[in-house]
Amino acid sequence: MNVGTPKARDVPHRHQPLRLRRLGIDTHQEAVIYMRSDCHVCRAEGFSAHARVRVESTGRSIIATLNQVTSDLLRDGEASLSEAGWRLLHAQEGNEITLSHPAPVVSLGRVRAKVFGERLRHDAFAEIVRDIVAGRYSDIELSSFVTACSARGLDRNETEALTRAMIDAGESLEWGRSPIVDKHCVGGLPGNRTTPIVVAIVAACGLTIPKTSSRAITSPAGTADTMETLAPVDLDIPSMRRVVEREGGCIVSGGAMRLSPADDVLIRIERALDLDSEGQLVASVISKKVAAGSTHLVLDLPVGPTAKVRGPEAAEALARSLVGTAAAFGVEARVVLSDGVQPVGRGIGPALEARDVLAVLRGEPDAPADLRARSVRLAGALLELAGAAEAGTGEVRSGRVLSDGGAWDKFQRICAAQGGMRVPPTADYRQPIVAKAAGRIAAIDNRRIARVAKLSGAPEAKAAGVALHVRLGDRIGVGDPLYSIHAESPGELAYAQEYAAANQDLIGVEDT
Amino acid sequence: MNVGTPKARDVPHRHQPLRLRRLGIDTHQEAVIYMRSDCHVCRAEGFSAHARVRVESTGRSIIATLNQVTSDLLRDGEASLSEAGWRLLHAQEGNEITLSHPAPVVSLGRVRAKVFGERLRHDAFAEIVRDIVAGRYSDIELSSFVTACSARGLDRNETEALTRAMIDAGESLEWGRSPIVDKHCVGGLPGNRTTPIVVAIVAACGLTIPKTSSRAITSPAGTADTMETLAPVDLDIPSMRRVVEREGGCIVSGGAMRLSPADDVLIRIERALDLDSEGQLVASVISKKVAAGSTHLVLDLPVGPTAKVRGPEAAEALARSLVGTAAAFGVEARVVLSDGVQPVGRGIGPALEARDVLAVLRGEPDAPADLRARSVRLAGALLELAGAAEAGTGEVRSGRVLSDGGAWDKFQRICAAQGGMRVPPTADYRQPIVAKAAGRIAAIDNRRIARVAKLSGAPEAKAAGVALHVRLGDRIGVGDPLYSIHAESPGELAYAQEYAAANQDLIGVEDT
Repeated sequence: MNVGTPKARDVPHRHQPLRLRRLGIDTHQEAVIYMRSDCHVCRAEGFSAHARVRVESTGRSIIATLNQVTSDLLRDGEASLSEAGWRLLHAQEGNEITLSHPAPVVSLGRVRAKVFGERLRHDAFAEIVRDIVAGRYSDIELSSFVTACSARGLDRNETEALTRAMIDAGESLEWGRSPIVDKHCVGGLPGNRTTPIVVAIVAACGLTIPKTSSRAITSPAGTADTMETLAPVDLDIPSMRRVVEREGGCIVSGGAMRLSPADDVLIRIERALDLDSEGQLVASVISKKVAAGSTHLVLDLPVGPTAKVRGPEAAEALARSLVGTAAAFGVEARVVLSDGVQPVGRGIGPALEARDVLAVLRGEPDAPADLRARSVRLAGALLELAGAAEAGTGEVRSGRVLSDGGAWDKFQRICAAQGGMRVPPTADYRQPIVAKAAGRIAAIDNRRIARVAKLSGAPEAKAAGVALHVRLGDRIGVGDPLYSIHAESPGELAYAQEYAAANQDLIGVEDT
Repeated sequence: MNVGTPKARDVPHRHQPLRLRRLGIDTHQEAVIYMRSDCHVCRAEGFSAHARVRVESTGRSIIATLNQVTSDLLRDGEASLSEAGWRLLHAQEGNEITLSHPAPVVSLGRVRAKVFGERLRHDAFAEIVRDIVAGRYSDIELSSFVTACSARGLDRNETEALTRAMIDAGESLEWGRSPIVDKHCVGGLPGNRTTPIVVAIVAACGLTIPKTSSRAITSPAGTADTMETLAPVDLDIPSMRRVVEREGGCIVSGGAMRLSPADDVLIRIERALDLDSEGQLVASVISKKVAAGSTHLVLDLPVGPTAKVRGPEAAEALARSLVGTAAAFGVEARVVLSDGVQPVGRGIGPALEARDVLAVLRGEPDAPADLRARSVRLAGALLELAGAAEAGTGEVRSGRVLSDGGAWDKFQRICAAQGGMRVPPTADYRQPIVAKAAGRIAAIDNRRIARVAKLSGAPEAKAAGVALHVRLGDRIGVGDPLYSIHAESPGELAYAQEYAAANQDLIGVEDT
């Protein structure tokens, strides 16, 4: 038997350190390390293309995907990171790094078990979420986790376990008082931008509503995207506290707060895949609310053939899961089912929706009545749930606060406290889409109209989106404008137009 | 109603072209485009970080993932591609490119349908596979497809449809004669390197066996990896034909032949995820065999508690699926179930396995008896299936051809025809792992021993792997070597040792 001499004992496992040089490559969230393919560390450690590599510097470490550089982009002894890598490692230009093989990411075995149908328990989700937050999953691995949870589904216990894991992996807010109220709309209904109005009403009524909203996942605008056209939303926790202490409410982006940092990572993958399954949706919503310190929560669930929730059974199941999971964390939740057959208001896209919000708050005569009615209903439910209004009186009180200017006043104060009110931008490129036939508007496809808005550039392009000119039941003639596409660039306008032209039936016109 | 002037009509949709400059960044298979974040095309088209972008040049187009460059790595008017992007686009330094928003990849809707449990038909798989081969899927999207097929499973019709789609997307070989024989081992059993021996025996008996093998998916060595240490394997189709016309057989890598190019893409993702589900496994195997022009096929299916197939029911199901899918394409297949309780031969890893193969072919006295017996059994089954031996006589004939040197002679001729026989490399770094207790070897964990071999660098490091010194039933004393780790670099040796130290029970020793 020839086993040779154990040479490894004599060879140091760590090598001459490499020095980091910034190349300024933005891969979005994935940490990538760029190394020369003839680099001594690559050779000595046996790294190969697309290996996952452990990178250590000044006491921190990350796992990065290796991209090899075959040119002189990097000099001998240099390596670089993607911008996400610099962030995760807290690295500086010129820092020394040491490289090694990462320990196997044990939680990936749990992901595979889920793929093959195993039910996961809390410890498994805790491991997975911890590794995700630490940046130990590649994009390929994140995609597999998101897909497995969608394909296999999450049962009640799993949803609760994932929710707890997501809360534990982030920051939590304590308010030292009760009730802390909150609302959330389970997306899928374009233009349903009630949050800024509800916060203004409820805070004007004296309740505490520290609202953190997310950016869009697969829709043309999230509340944070819309609100950002009206005021700064990227507040840190102390700044948010100051706003809430002063005004009783805020509307800020949860993204920077790390209230559920795993969710922020998973959302990007869900968006890329256009996947947003029930279990992950519930864990995403409830983890953020619990971490934000909420005690009472109203959930708006629009139901319609082209909304995210398509029928009463699906709505029932989702409502049970939301309320049950919330209760497991001591949060009293109430679901308000609402009509999801057509978009709400006129605008779809951050700035266009902001304009609808302003119209309602200011009580303008042509303010969208549906957006107003929905906001009043949700605010009323919150007032009742939190004991600030007798059962049956919440809506009336909400409507009064809106009519008498109290909500508008409160909203302006909140914007000022968040850093100053802004005027939503307008789009330079616009194009009306007109009716080819006369008749009555019989159907509006929420998904496809949202797609037009996304193709036009929303939510990244704040001014982009769709302005609807018709509602269900309207009578129209040939050549009447159905909606207008707004875009910030000609390329995006053309792209959205092309889709609109190929999907003229997204607004159904009935012969009369 | 204010819809503005339709300015877009006056603005050209295409912009000043950018010029390509090579940065030499190897992202493995994903096409990435690098563009300055302040680039006029980025702004005008509204691309944002991580967008998917359509890149066109000299009549070809690809979809690439956008990485933005925030430094002066690229000059104004320049863009770059990852090495995979250059390859897919057939682009040259200095080529002009035009960029636009890609049409939505329609087949991704099919992938989502699969995630949510829909059964896919042939047209859906055909669309998906076509888009994958054209490089239209990002790594995130590929991962979702692989995971969805694993989590939801593929039924018989889906497996056949995916197989057909994979065949249609690549090249097919015609031999103008029958039978064309082939063998395949459904992996999971380390060291089970029968193929070179079977090909030599069967070709020596006058049958035609144009064997294309794959590289490792999730194992420490594929047949192509092992064979490459003995002779060149990256032959193109004309060269392969010349070898087969002259010698009746070959053992080459299928990777460069584009016999099932979708499989080559999917394998990389399956490897990264360590996922290799039944339907995809069957489609992968049968598509390659049909495309290679096989008419008769013997499949080796090792069964054991730590093999890929763990029990008789799973083996039955997989065998039915393999034979049924093969029959749908006119291929007569027979499954040989074999004992999969422990590794075969002594070596695990390309060069170490090659040495076992040589020992059997040369009839060396200490050649691994189990590897010889398995090879003879499979070759015998092939001779019988193809009508070259009476039922019940195949094994005897195979054994004779091996003993009388006919197979060894044929193997050397095949190696010479493929470009010249090679001597497998040996590893510079080795370390024996010794027994901590005396007793009898009661169990060997195939998966964990394979993991040690992978951590030591196999299959990329050809000389790396594990040399087993014991077999089930052996009696050992304290300090006796159980196996040795072979590595080409000290880092890899240390890494494998660490895992071995933490997994001492991967070889189970029973008190006697």
